[in-house]
Amino acid sequence: MTELLLPFDPTRDGGLTARLTTALRDAVRQGRPPAGGRLPATRTLARDLGLSRGTVVEAYAQLVAEGYLVSTPGAGTRVADGITPRPPAPPPATTAPAVRYDLKPGTPDLALFPRAAWQTALRRALAATEHSALGYGDPAGHPALRAELAAYLGRVRAAAADPGRLTVVGGVAQGLALVVRRLVRHGHRTIAVEDPGSPGTFGLLRAHGIEPVGVPVDQHGLDVDALAATGARAVLVTPAHQYPTGVVLAPERRAALIGWARRTGALVIEDDYDAEFRYDREPVGCLQGLAPDLVVHLGSLSKSLAPGLRLGWAVLPEPMVEEFRTDKQYTDLGCSTLDQLAFARLLADGGHDRHLRAVRARYRARRDALTAALARHLPAAAVRGVAAGLHLHLDLPPGCTEPAVVEAAAARGVRVDPVAPTRLALPGPPALVLGYAGLTERQLAHAADLLAEAVTEATG
Amino acid sequence: MTELLLPFDPTRDGGLTARLTTALRDAVRQGRPPAGGRLPATRTLARDLGLSRGTVVEAYAQLVAEGYLVSTPGAGTRVADGITPRPPAPPPATTAPAVRYDLKPGTPDLALFPRAAWQTALRRALAATEHSALGYGDPAGHPALRAELAAYLGRVRAAAADPGRLTVVGGVAQGLALVVRRLVRHGHRTIAVEDPGSPGTFGLLRAHGIEPVGVPVDQHGLDVDALAATGARAVLVTPAHQYPTGVVLAPERRAALIGWARRTGALVIEDDYDAEFRYDREPVGCLQGLAPDLVVHLGSLSKSLAPGLRLGWAVLPEPMVEEFRTDKQYTDLGCSTLDQLAFARLLADGGHDRHLRAVRARYRARRDALTAALARHLPAAAVRGVAAGLHLHLDLPPGCTEPAVVEAAAARGVRVDPVAPTRLALPGPPALVLGYAGLTERQLAHAADLLAEAVTEATG
Repeated sequence: MTELLLPFDPTRDGGLTARLTTALRDAVRQGRPPAGGRLPATRTLARDLGLSRGTVVEAYAQLVAEGYLVSTPGAGTRVADGITPRPPAPPPATTAPAVRYDLKPGTPDLALFPRAAWQTALRRALAATEHSALGYGDPAGHPALRAELAAYLGRVRAAAADPGRLTVVGGVAQGLALVVRRLVRHGHRTIAVEDPGSPGTFGLLRAHGIEPVGVPVDQHGLDVDALAATGARAVLVTPAHQYPTGVVLAPERRAALIGWARRTGALVIEDDYDAEFRYDREPVGCLQGLAPDLVVHLGSLSKSLAPGLRLGWAVLPEPMVEEFRTDKQYTDLGCSTLDQLAFARLLADGGHDRHLRAVRARYRARRDALTAALARHLPAAAVRGVAAGLHLHLDLPPGCTEPAVVEAAAARGVRVDPVAPTRLALPGPPALVLGYAGLTERQLAHAADLLAEAVTEATG
Repeated sequence: MTELLLPFDPTRDGGLTARLTTALRDAVRQGRPPAGGRLPATRTLARDLGLSRGTVVEAYAQLVAEGYLVSTPGAGTRVADGITPRPPAPPPATTAPAVRYDLKPGTPDLALFPRAAWQTALRRALAATEHSALGYGDPAGHPALRAELAAYLGRVRAAAADPGRLTVVGGVAQGLALVVRRLVRHGHRTIAVEDPGSPGTFGLLRAHGIEPVGVPVDQHGLDVDALAATGARAVLVTPAHQYPTGVVLAPERRAALIGWARRTGALVIEDDYDAEFRYDREPVGCLQGLAPDLVVHLGSLSKSLAPGLRLGWAVLPEPMVEEFRTDKQYTDLGCSTLDQLAFARLLADGGHDRHLRAVRARYRARRDALTAALARHLPAAAVRGVAAGLHLHLDLPPGCTEPAVVEAAAARGVRVDPVAPTRLALPGPPALVLGYAGLTERQLAHAADLLAEAVTEATG
């Protein structure tokens, strides 16, 4: 009897040779026999397993070709040196504790994602698309989507977007990463950012080798005089709806920002992350439309449709276009063509506009419900910023700290985010960022009630 | 009459204010009036256009908020400084001249992409997926796909792939870019590559700040002694089917390569780009399965399904896993979830296996047709490498150069690629790389006939 313990079941389906090969490979990987160890003679193993000798010879030959075994004439077959045992599987991931009302900001209501419309758009797009579109395409994006997107951004965001200067990217994060790597290559070591701002963005900037320098934000948005004092030659801004304060960049600040960029040759990066959602008036047109030679305009489907699509755009000043396309090419050769085609079709069919109208009404009602409930239950806390987007900024009443409120709310099943992680360097009064997109009006009213209790507990 | 020429048609659909705003914005962008120029008084413009004064006031206010106009009490409304005219649209892209038989390598037959099966897989996946999957997910990939892929790679490629060490990436290009950026961060300045190799890869490596150093390839694959002499601490290889020569890394070379990596602490990057297609025998298991602690295994759907999907994987040594995940996060936050779910379903349903069986038979017949026709028409030219993949390497007969043959073939409507661009530094005899995946047997036979004519012309 051979000493080789083989997990080999001759009654299973599949070719005998392939299955014996797999069993032998697994045994070798698990150190049976160990490196250098000798395998049974083919004749012996064949007899023990009730197989033809040819089957065993073939399996050995396959594993010699793969490098697991070494066969020396006269010396038999041994396990090759350098084969390591397969590492044990990692423990299964633990799941986060459930919360009753999750007000984590940043995600739209994923239940509203138009699954059927998306599938229809993909089906129609595929039916109308030539085969060659499924090959390696233009790294800057499929022409159909670039044309639709340019028209959409001109219409909805007053962007000066022509398809030739628009690149499809895997969301704002990728667009920003590509811009920043170009800045680093051109000698930038710092970039001005709004403080408070997006903590994920701070991490992304540092990961790509550029240090974010905070610029204060007041009720009119970014302080452009303070920006000028930093000496930075690039700035990242959220003019339509500042994250997290929710303020809009005021007209005179927009002019001052563009003036600063033109005077100093600086680059303005506009993150238009949730500009589809303005509830009290027409949204303010994007900054890029004012000065397309100075502004990179970034946007995505993460708030309007779903973050999981990982699809967005960058509209670039003309001199950046070719370098950006090359960077995109050497990053991933471009975005998924099927997703691009589906979204182009959704735009062309008017399905995207219909979806936005429907969800805008929902989000507006949710925001109204939350602000009304906060005014009722927490009159001492002030909502900052304009009626827009998917989150609001709540200044906490005096006498409580962010961690105390967050903890007391969590104890009541309400998950809220403190503002602290959004602060780069500048201090500010305690506040929360509340994302309301994923909860119903009734849930939001109850959450506000529980949050008021939490504030009382944290204050008292 | 006002002097402002407005492309404004009061008979069109849409809100009057919105349309007037758009018309004014466009006019300002085109320099009418120029920066600093004064706009008509609201009363005057309203009268000229036959609109209510309120409509004009609202449109002006919107453009003041957007920064296009500046309104000073008593001084009227002027165009803001710093507004630049919109650049003209670029000329439309020119299309490449048509060719009769395109033997450019690197792309599968896109007509064989299983459109219906993909749509069904997406539909089923969406029907079974909780909403939360559409949010920001694990940058390393959706758990369902990672589990399916790990099982698939273990089964088909004998990879030692557990889901915890597998990251979903946007194709081999992205996987390689992420590995290389990590190498650069850890001080690597050079990486060994096969010479000849993939020209796109050489460019990618340089773009990420690492210099490719060529290592010769013979009929047994990479020359490991020459590799050791380079002093590089990382190497990129295509062991299953070397690009472009088509040879397989021999068993003793596999052992030597792993031995070198273990001895020197070097990293082996395995590009398993077309290993699904081996026609003469069972494919050799991947290198990574031999030494999962030393090898990064990269693969993608670009040859098995379609490059346009931009989906692939990286199986990593355990110590690289977390850093790679963070790099992926700061690159694009992850790949499209819908595509991941659709592919996971295609794997789980057996649809991917069925597709591979079907296309493998087609490609094998095409390869056989091409090699037979080449043997008939061009007996002096030798096919190198094994029966695998989607391309073959053809050594040209003495007396002709690559450019002369490529040009003479193009004159006959046959597009073939010279080997020259795949050579990094080492010279070699004239040869062609022929991609046969996209043409029928009859077309390939005719193309071989025309190619033989071209060789005759180029030699004579």
